[in-house]
Amino acid sequence: MINKENLYDVLIIGGGPAGLTASIYAKRAGLKVAFFEKDAPGGKVTKTAFVENYPGFKKIEGYNLALSMLNQATEIGVEYKYGNVIKIQKDNNTFIIKTEDGKEHFSKTVIIASGMTNRKSGAIGEDKYFNKGVSYCAICDGAFYKNQDVAIIGGGNSALEEALFLTDIVSKVYIVHRRDEFRADQSVVEHVKRNNKIELVLDSIVKEIKGDDKHVNSILVENAKTQELKSIEVRAVFPFVGFDPVSNFISNDFVISNNGFIIVNDKMETNIPGLFSAGDINNKTYRQISTAISDGTIAALAAKKYIDDNEW
Amino acid sequence: MINKENLYDVLIIGGGPAGLTASIYAKRAGLKVAFFEKDAPGGKVTKTAFVENYPGFKKIEGYNLALSMLNQATEIGVEYKYGNVIKIQKDNNTFIIKTEDGKEHFSKTVIIASGMTNRKSGAIGEDKYFNKGVSYCAICDGAFYKNQDVAIIGGGNSALEEALFLTDIVSKVYIVHRRDEFRADQSVVEHVKRNNKIELVLDSIVKEIKGDDKHVNSILVENAKTQELKSIEVRAVFPFVGFDPVSNFISNDFVISNNGFIIVNDKMETNIPGLFSAGDINNKTYRQISTAISDGTIAALAAKKYIDDNEW
Repeated sequence: MINKENLYDVLIIGGGPAGLTASIYAKRAGLKVAFFEKDAPGGKVTKTAFVENYPGFKKIEGYNLALSMLNQATEIGVEYKYGNVIKIQKDNNTFIIKTEDGKEHFSKTVIIASGMTNRKSGAIGEDKYFNKGVSYCAICDGAFYKNQDVAIIGGGNSALEEALFLTDIVSKVYIVHRRDEFRADQSVVEHVKRNNKIELVLDSIVKEIKGDDKHVNSILVENAKTQELKSIEVRAVFPFVGFDPVSNFISNDFVISNNGFIIVNDKMETNIPGLFSAGDINNKTYRQISTAISDGTIAALAAKKYIDDNEW
Repeated sequence: MINKENLYDVLIIGGGPAGLTASIYAKRAGLKVAFFEKDAPGGKVTKTAFVENYPGFKKIEGYNLALSMLNQATEIGVEYKYGNVIKIQKDNNTFIIKTEDGKEHFSKTVIIASGMTNRKSGAIGEDKYFNKGVSYCAICDGAFYKNQDVAIIGGGNSALEEALFLTDIVSKVYIVHRRDEFRADQSVVEHVKRNNKIELVLDSIVKEIKGDDKHVNSILVENAKTQELKSIEVRAVFPFVGFDPVSNFISNDFVISNNGFIIVNDKMETNIPGLFSAGDINNKTYRQISTAISDGTIAALAAKKYIDDNEW
């Protein structure tokens, strides 16, 4: 049952940079706010070794950056609810969030900030060398491999665009792709083919990512047609074989999305009044900590305005 | 004369959070990048006493946050050019930036990040008590005045919306406005009139902002019709009498803007290919450090992609 005591102004789903920032802005605006997180708060940042592109910190461990944001939120009174959200509904002007433990939570507004996950390539050693040469973000981590050789796994737009991104930084980019043609846009493919820093390794699969236990030093590649194996020396491997929204709790006939990536306007408004969405789960081009905190800021301020503009 | 040595990939106009972030991202992408700043680098943040809503820092002096961002940029090799930009032109696919000292600077892309300035109310004591109770950002500084009385000066949309924003935080908001009706949208005016935490002080001018030298404690208000003077006890004063883009170097028939505030799409692209714009100078609703660094991130990454996609 909803009553004045258990009705939140803002409930946030996800405790990464977008969700934590939204919670800080909402709380500082005087609102009753909590966020749900089913894993360690901080989102993907917690699993990042070092962050060098978040303005204000020359170099910070991802875990520490996430912890700073979390503490900043909880110390001003943001409530952290450990739990797995399984459903969002709207009943009249109130949102009902259901968690796996069977509880219902009520709020005037909801901000979805549940993020996304990167698909793994499946190569042996991919997990072992994560943060030790294996990275899912060339924009974030490319600069660590200046004038070195790196490999990208994949053949879609994001794989090829990340390869092009790296060419002004590294010596050489191998693109290892299981087919002999690319799914990417033709103009991107043309650019890749013209770029003399890129070497294509087609019809090929990365079987294993190898290293000296501390860091990647090579990949073992199998030709899919001939089964021939060869080793390529690289210092970093960027698998770009796809990514998925964390959106299993959102019904498709409720929220409009692009394959689960939520479509918002510049106020972070979804198609449902009072429902906002922020960060990596949004349908957008660039997914960085800096863009996530902006989304979180805007979503919270727009939620506050929505509350002011409606009757409760 | 343009040659390979003096042609930049990215020149950025402005060294606030948007410009510095753009410079960090562009440099880490392997590009040749510099930013122009005619004042102290750091933008308006340098003049902010304390920042509590930038994720990662519980509380930091504005000056120190700005300095951290500046050092982060220059230490990775971003060039800082002290100078006042007076003109941007595009000649074929090269931008020419002219500075006051008569020099010309050449670049493949330009990011405008020159910010905006807040108009002053003109009250005596406004400068003296800046950062000591006088603030031009209720979203940033409202939370410092929890359960206290504050005043807003102005009668437009932003004045009234900031007043509504404050009502969940402070005890009481006086809106001091020189006329007896508001320029704001009718729906906003209705909300303001219905809100019992807001007291309107119409036909009135704040003559003086007073305090104990350390902090604001009252305002002296004059009735414009009767010339009657009265004192109102408040702990903070937020003048919202307007703000202006820093856009004197941009010709109106070159870049499309809304009264000088530059219109961009979600890639921070202006109407001119290769010309991007980021931060407070953009035509948008929320101007925060967090939103500025997102704009700067996106502008730099979009500029990098523009360079990859074109011939030089």
